[in-house]
Amino acid sequence: MTISVGESIRNGVDTAALFATLDAVKSAPEAARFQFRAHNEWMSGTHNRGTIHDYFGVGMERTHERTFTFDADHPAVLVGRDNGPTPVEYVLHALAACLTAGLANIAAARGVTLTEVRSTVTGDIDLNGLLGLNPEVRNGYQQITVRFTVKGDASPERLRELIEQSRSRSAVYDIITNGVPVAIEVDTP
Amino acid sequence: MTISVGESIRNGVDTAALFATLDAVKSAPEAARFQFRAHNEWMSGTHNRGTIHDYFGVGMERTHERTFTFDADHPAVLVGRDNGPTPVEYVLHALAACLTAGLANIAAARGVTLTEVRSTVTGDIDLNGLLGLNPEVRNGYQQITVRFTVKGDASPERLRELIEQSRSRSAVYDIITNGVPVAIEVDTP
Repeated sequence: MTISVGESIRNGVDTAALFATLDAVKSAPEAARFQFRAHNEWMSGTHNRGTIHDYFGVGMERTHERTFTFDADHPAVLVGRDNGPTPVEYVLHALAACLTAGLANIAAARGVTLTEVRSTVTGDIDLNGLLGLNPEVRNGYQQITVRFTVKGDASPERLRELIEQSRSRSAVYDIITNGVPVAIEVDTP
Repeated sequence: MTISVGESIRNGVDTAALFATLDAVKSAPEAARFQFRAHNEWMSGTHNRGTIHDYFGVGMERTHERTFTFDADHPAVLVGRDNGPTPVEYVLHALAACLTAGLANIAAARGVTLTEVRSTVTGDIDLNGLLGLNPEVRNGYQQITVRFTVKGDASPERLRELIEQSRSRSAVYDIITNGVPVAIEVDTP
């Protein structure tokens, strides 16, 4: 390697590896077919536990370095025991995480050094929908708003452009704004 | 209280509290307006950390009993350091958690005792989309599939009906299949 760390690493992103990955996928597009997975086990009431470990990508079965587990529950005010966030809060977390990761990558690729990225995602929901009390109210969020605070060695306009580019390439933003077909299969042994 | 535990608690769900909550919202629909929130702080590269703690509901600001923190990252094969699941995996977890919590509530309300609920959610994604290598490929999942294994003291048909009812009232299912408007605001101090 003749590229020094100072040249290759920016924002903690190995840009040489990033560009090498892009080149590799260009020459073998099927490597980019991934299947991600989450496993879930019901505990009690609204409390359940998710496990994330295995996935498929770059032509083979893979696993994360660790097994990640995440409890979900409802708070007491929604007749749960607050053993974890609600499922809808995980959706907000996913959106912030996706936009932030994309921003760091895109800024690094374009030579912008970031010093701080914070965000708060809010989701407004009227539970009259999912409680079945008002057929005119949807079950899910009516509006989601992301508020970023970003600092780095670029003009405010440039930083906004980088976030816009992250939005335009975000998997979770696409999922949430455009929807995805969901099939449900049930085994009752 | 004259209702014994055996009458009120099923599947770990306090059905008396569940019905009381429904009645309370019927008489004061504005109590059902919630705002959930996730906060996020960029760590380095694709690694960032989400925090879930505060929310608004039943007319006031509230907090979970604990502060929940969740790291997100990309695996090494996607030029990250695998400090947590990818953002898109959190979306799958949210869907499983929502459908499972709803199932437990609905089964309890209808007098069905569940003994086991497991699920695996898979999401197929072609990263040629978000990598900008193929404009015909979307950024997000192309298809999500949920596979449930459910056991309880009801017929297979009845158990399937309960899952169908959970799907029809699921906030996360609605968000993912129908989409939600997302606004992004940027502060560059």
